Amino acid sequence: MDEEKLNEESEKKTLETLREIIKTKDPEALSVCFDAQNPVDFARAAVKLDDDELTELTTILDDDELASLMEESEDDDRIRIARTLDNKRLLTAFEYMQKDDIVDMLGDFPIGRRKEVINLMKADDRRIINNLLQYPEDSAGGLMTTAYIALRETLSVSAGLDKLREIGPKTEVIETIFIINDRRKLIGWCDLRDLLAAPKDRYLSDIMHDKVISVPPETDQEETAHIVSKYDLVALPVVSPSNQILGIVTVDDVIDVIVEEYDEDILQMAGVSKEENIDTSLGESIKMRLPWLLVNLLTAFLASYIVKAFESTIAQVVALSAIMTIVSGMGGNAGTQTMSILVRELSQKNLKFSDCIRPFLKEIALGVVDGAATGAVTAVVVYFMYGNAFLGLITLMAMIGNLVIAGVCGFLVPVILKKIHADPAIASSIFVTTATDVLGFFIFLGLANIFLRFLI
Amino acid sequence: MDEEKLNEESEKKTLETLREIIKTKDPEALSVCFDAQNPVDFARAAVKLDDDELTELTTILDDDELASLMEESEDDDRIRIARTLDNKRLLTAFEYMQKDDIVDMLGDFPIGRRKEVINLMKADDRRIINNLLQYPEDSAGGLMTTAYIALRETLSVSAGLDKLREIGPKTEVIETIFIINDRRKLIGWCDLRDLLAAPKDRYLSDIMHDKVISVPPETDQEETAHIVSKYDLVALPVVSPSNQILGIVTVDDVIDVIVEEYDEDILQMAGVSKEENIDTSLGESIKMRLPWLLVNLLTAFLASYIVKAFESTIAQVVALSAIMTIVSGMGGNAGTQTMSILVRELSQKNLKFSDCIRPFLKEIALGVVDGAATGAVTAVVVYFMYGNAFLGLITLMAMIGNLVIAGVCGFLVPVILKKIHADPAIASSIFVTTATDVLGFFIFLGLANIFLRFLI
Repeated sequence: MDEEKLNEESEKKTLETLREIIKTKDPEALSVCFDAQNPVDFARAAVKLDDDELTELTTILDDDELASLMEESEDDDRIRIARTLDNKRLLTAFEYMQKDDIVDMLGDFPIGRRKEVINLMKADDRRIINNLLQYPEDSAGGLMTTAYIALRETLSVSAGLDKLREIGPKTEVIETIFIINDRRKLIGWCDLRDLLAAPKDRYLSDIMHDKVISVPPETDQEETAHIVSKYDLVALPVVSPSNQILGIVTVDDVIDVIVEEYDEDILQMAGVSKEENIDTSLGESIKMRLPWLLVNLLTAFLASYIVKAFESTIAQVVALSAIMTIVSGMGGNAGTQTMSILVRELSQKNLKFSDCIRPFLKEIALGVVDGAATGAVTAVVVYFMYGNAFLGLITLMAMIGNLVIAGVCGFLVPVILKKIHADPAIASSIFVTTATDVLGFFIFLGLANIFLRFLI
Repeated sequence: MDEEKLNEESEKKTLETLREIIKTKDPEALSVCFDAQNPVDFARAAVKLDDDELTELTTILDDDELASLMEESEDDDRIRIARTLDNKRLLTAFEYMQKDDIVDMLGDFPIGRRKEVINLMKADDRRIINNLLQYPEDSAGGLMTTAYIALRETLSVSAGLDKLREIGPKTEVIETIFIINDRRKLIGWCDLRDLLAAPKDRYLSDIMHDKVISVPPETDQEETAHIVSKYDLVALPVVSPSNQILGIVTVDDVIDVIVEEYDEDILQMAGVSKEENIDTSLGESIKMRLPWLLVNLLTAFLASYIVKAFESTIAQVVALSAIMTIVSGMGGNAGTQTMSILVRELSQKNLKFSDCIRPFLKEIALGVVDGAATGAVTAVVVYFMYGNAFLGLITLMAMIGNLVIAGVCGFLVPVILKKIHADPAIASSIFVTTATDVLGFFIFLGLANIFLRFLI
């Protein structure tokens, strides 16, 4: 906590210093300020400047400092910074940036400017950038960088080390070296420490490991992240159908993917866009949240309609209106439990039909047991509150029924959504709670209606 | 999807091969099987063996293969494997394992065996292990490994490279080299590529970067993960109060932490233990899920009690019982939206009181707007269903009131929980939905009671 306060203090100080510098336009002072801290922290402070100040700042910054500022900023801020630059300056800054960061930025540009900038690039760069731009942002191809190290198997260890000295500074990952054959196919990898420890006259083909884990460029980013984390990789090669290496996905990008997917799941499950945060304007928040509330309103009407259908029953036993909310609410809670287990399971692997039978039957049994337990407690309370044993009995039966429904829907809804290629994490909740509300009211009020003469 | 099927197929094949080998007790065949795949995949198949088979397997495995099997297995499986080994064999296998993995395993041992094993260790190892064991498992100290590279600032580049060749194979991260002074204090770091590219006669103190990001060992694992991901680090040094390096936290452990915290949040928010999965037995599932349902039952009683208090009102206007579920349900949805935004915000930073005022007021305004919008739709529907304009008007007012309450509670509950050091991700939901249920019923039925004569 103290550390965070310190961070905020130093961010504020940097921001003040930057505003001073903008007034004096002193590039020396700016370089001192830039060097005095981690580039991430510098970027965090700099993007707090308003648009006019930012324009002034980018004019004073060196090209490599400007590149670092763009690399370390969030997507929105990168675009703000790019807007302050003409194409020529932008291209000079790109010289200092990793290709995958450039592609990320260009992907967020208005289409017109993106084309302009790409056309102004050197032919080589243009080819690489266009290649990377063809993959969707959330695929392995969209995540990968071309700044990897691939050496020929026929190189000796000492020649390999010389190569490393030369190209190392331009790469993102130096720890893992990929080995290719004369047709540029990926045939192995070695760790830099293998290379350092090996006798200098051996060949890379002698010391390499020949089992390489790789993915095609269209692999989904979630799957890609899963592989990197499962095998504890530092870099995962992305290969063409003919096994030529196209790029690598690095572990730092994988962390960003995991955090992003996490935010997405948590927020979208609750009906909130991942773009929204605490500083989003009122108008934007309304635009993002109201549609979800209106969808939920529809399902609420459905549940309400069931209650209305039993109006005459409720009119005769008003106690029902207080108890029915317990039955439907508990169904919702139990359904959410089952659903959460399934959503996690499905995010980690595909379930085969035969794997599902036992767990599905278990959820039904669980519904009976948990329904009986919570139902019995409720029945006793109901009995003492209303002095009617039948009312308690009906509550018990309805609770068991609704918790079984909760188990069945909590299990099937995510499985079916995954089958039809919808995201279970986002859409499951509304279907499950609608089912437990609607059917919870229906079972409880239906039973009450059947046994009405015992309740009056 | 195909890849996953392939994985399953090959896992099944490996398992069959292992069962063959166990019958023939052929260590050659076992080594071939071990070498034929990634150690992670080998471990995944091997832990599917039953306890007797596993005992047979560990007798045939080489020490280094056994070590790899334990390193790549999940916590529970590691313990199962360790149970098949006597202390002597266990210690031999430990020789091939990273110290942080050994400590993780020992932490899960019964206390008696843990002490036995540690006492049998060599004095040096015992000291390191006891040192690591003193930190909680979920702190930076508990995550760190001692297999880092720290070189003296007075070394030349070529001497540094020689050192690397020697100790590199025993370390976890080779890409980042930490630089210490003659009192072993951490004063800088350099990237291996800097070292490779630098003239051989320069000193490490000349080429090092002197701004090192480090944490004390008691730093919480979530905070630790946050720092590694923010600064895109490969290794984060853990230091003593006097700035001596104690160990490093590596990026692969950080990914595990992020995934673990993610599962924890998603599941515990729904009242499910992170230990539960689709294969958990019925008895275990009951034990883990029923307590949460009982807690929820208590809050359901509370809401139900409010409804009961207005029984005489409902008896006169039965339509109220159908409409009240809409008001309470929509409050729950809106409250969950606000809460999700806050929970994410709080997991990323501490909010100061002064940062909260505007967003808090925005949530209230949002409650008014979204409440008016959904309330108006509901009022129109209610008017057409029941033919009573006053009933619609009361619904509109109650909806606005409950959505404002949803905004207020959705905002304050997570903030207060964080303030009292509870985890907002886990506990917020129950408080927020209880508030929107209880107060939703109260406002709606209370208004109905006040304007009762217009409703009949």
